[in-house]
Amino acid sequence: MGGSVVTEPRLHMEIAQQPVVLQGLLNEGRSAIERLAREIKQRGIAHVLIAARGTSDNAGVYAKYLLSTATELAVGLAAPSLYTLYNRPPRLTRDTLVLGISQSGMSPDIVAVLQNAREQGIYTAAMVNNTASRMAEAAECVVPLAAGEERAVAATKSYTAQLMAVAMLAAALSEEERWWQELELVPQAVRAALDLEQVLARRTERYRFMDQCVTVSRGYNYATALESALKIKELTHTSVTGYSAADFLHGPISIVRNGYPVMTIACQGPTMDSLRQLIGRLGEAGAEQIIVTDDADTAAPAELKLVLPVAVPEWLSPIPAIIPAQLLGYHLALAHGLDPDNPKGLDKVTETR
Amino acid sequence: MGGSVVTEPRLHMEIAQQPVVLQGLLNEGRSAIERLAREIKQRGIAHVLIAARGTSDNAGVYAKYLLSTATELAVGLAAPSLYTLYNRPPRLTRDTLVLGISQSGMSPDIVAVLQNAREQGIYTAAMVNNTASRMAEAAECVVPLAAGEERAVAATKSYTAQLMAVAMLAAALSEEERWWQELELVPQAVRAALDLEQVLARRTERYRFMDQCVTVSRGYNYATALESALKIKELTHTSVTGYSAADFLHGPISIVRNGYPVMTIACQGPTMDSLRQLIGRLGEAGAEQIIVTDDADTAAPAELKLVLPVAVPEWLSPIPAIIPAQLLGYHLALAHGLDPDNPKGLDKVTETR
Repeated sequence: MGGSVVTEPRLHMEIAQQPVVLQGLLNEGRSAIERLAREIKQRGIAHVLIAARGTSDNAGVYAKYLLSTATELAVGLAAPSLYTLYNRPPRLTRDTLVLGISQSGMSPDIVAVLQNAREQGIYTAAMVNNTASRMAEAAECVVPLAAGEERAVAATKSYTAQLMAVAMLAAALSEEERWWQELELVPQAVRAALDLEQVLARRTERYRFMDQCVTVSRGYNYATALESALKIKELTHTSVTGYSAADFLHGPISIVRNGYPVMTIACQGPTMDSLRQLIGRLGEAGAEQIIVTDDADTAAPAELKLVLPVAVPEWLSPIPAIIPAQLLGYHLALAHGLDPDNPKGLDKVTETR
Repeated sequence: MGGSVVTEPRLHMEIAQQPVVLQGLLNEGRSAIERLAREIKQRGIAHVLIAARGTSDNAGVYAKYLLSTATELAVGLAAPSLYTLYNRPPRLTRDTLVLGISQSGMSPDIVAVLQNAREQGIYTAAMVNNTASRMAEAAECVVPLAAGEERAVAATKSYTAQLMAVAMLAAALSEEERWWQELELVPQAVRAALDLEQVLARRTERYRFMDQCVTVSRGYNYATALESALKIKELTHTSVTGYSAADFLHGPISIVRNGYPVMTIACQGPTMDSLRQLIGRLGEAGAEQIIVTDDADTAAPAELKLVLPVAVPEWLSPIPAIIPAQLLGYHLALAHGLDPDNPKGLDKVTETR
């Protein structure tokens, strides 16, 4: 208080808190999530419509893939402007769950999706960190993310808590204890992933003048590609775009030239073969490769090898796999001389050139 | 034949064919689309799952918005890897239509979504240009796009035909003749938009060394932002990312510095106010603005003003509004010395730097 005491940035603290947050959610959150799973079964829910924005929307992409593979639910993402600008929301069927995902629970357009669902008599749930929010009020079933206050502008612990809550919902719907045993591996895998900070603190300066980049993955980790892009973009004002590997191969790969930076997230599972093929093509094109993987061999072609020390089953891999991009974004913000807690604070500075 | 006769690039011919293609689809395609609309009503369809990739996926985004506002159908986009890599497709309910959208009808993952739906006993339809394709075979109801053979790698006339077919389906579902009267305005509006080539041929060189760019819109024209990004990226190997204005304001706008190029697509309707606000913020940030609009005043802050000469009702505006990006992509490919018919042919050339 008063004076220029150097304090640890909130962002760094929040990144470091993730193993504890995730363990806490696993221990304390199971009963709320099992209650939601029972409602889904008793109500014969077949469709899930997810309402989310920004980082939470990326957790929604994970839910779209995981809830389908785990439970065969048909999952879609809401288009909020249908509610707010056009005032013509879709008519939902009684076998639909509308699921809000949010840190703050305050985004009016997302709250509008839940409120409209309730007016239609549709069952609603919210996975939300701030349980004193309008979203929590609007939803019939509230799953607290219990990540603690998140003050840095760039969301980190609330994102992994959202992924964890979605994964726990899949486990609860599966009704197989094995899924819960696998979930127990996650906090330790995230703790191990945090050790990559040693590499990243040393190597990040290389990317100080990188002005664009793409991030690519597929399947469950398509969410990781999108969130990695958003994190680096938010923290460093660099133009980063996330792709599904399949979409990337259908055209955008043409932007890759010699030295062009590409971050590929490739974890062991059904998507691995296609991602290794992509890594091969990127190598031929002379790309500067950053590879996040749980398999050391896969990282071999990379200039920056980010090997997750502890592998988890593929359906859980997006939780540890986002840690490297969080840390890279943090160190890159420092290298840029930006405040990692509020990188957008610099928006109003007009650069001369 | 034989020798180096200079011929008009296929891409340019296909762009120019669009008014005729759209008029033809409007005249000849109505009965097939009305048949599909009758099936949707008789079967009590409430959900639509769209399967598409690349450019056709952008037509799917238009369908997601338009079919909801026009008919209250709940529309989602399929995740093909659930079918092909994970072999765990969602279980669909009987009130679902699976709609494939494609030029070639040959992408195996998209065909797999339709085939799986038929195995589940779910009604399927395909809006497809190549009616001798596997997708046309897989679907119960085929809506031919009738755009004629498309040979340029970058899709243009098949995209606007897809938008037209979706718009005609909305009209058929509305059962109001007024919608069909509005559709009749489209071919002329597209023909008028093609006149912007005079401006673009003259001004495009300014962007020869643009190495990144973003495209932004909202609502129906969110599809236009995505497709504009894809077109310029495919044709010029430039890093272009399309955003919804709402998502863009939730973080990525921080990348906009003095001189940063942003293309905003702002047509008259409920999204206009928010897009004009965005244009104001971009002006304060010193962005280099490219503005596609049907309202001359809105274009005033732009360095490159692309004013559509004929306005159509907002629900149809994405059809003329994509023309400027098609023409900009074409002229930018020429400025780069790339073959506009096959820009990816240069993929294998390794640049030295």
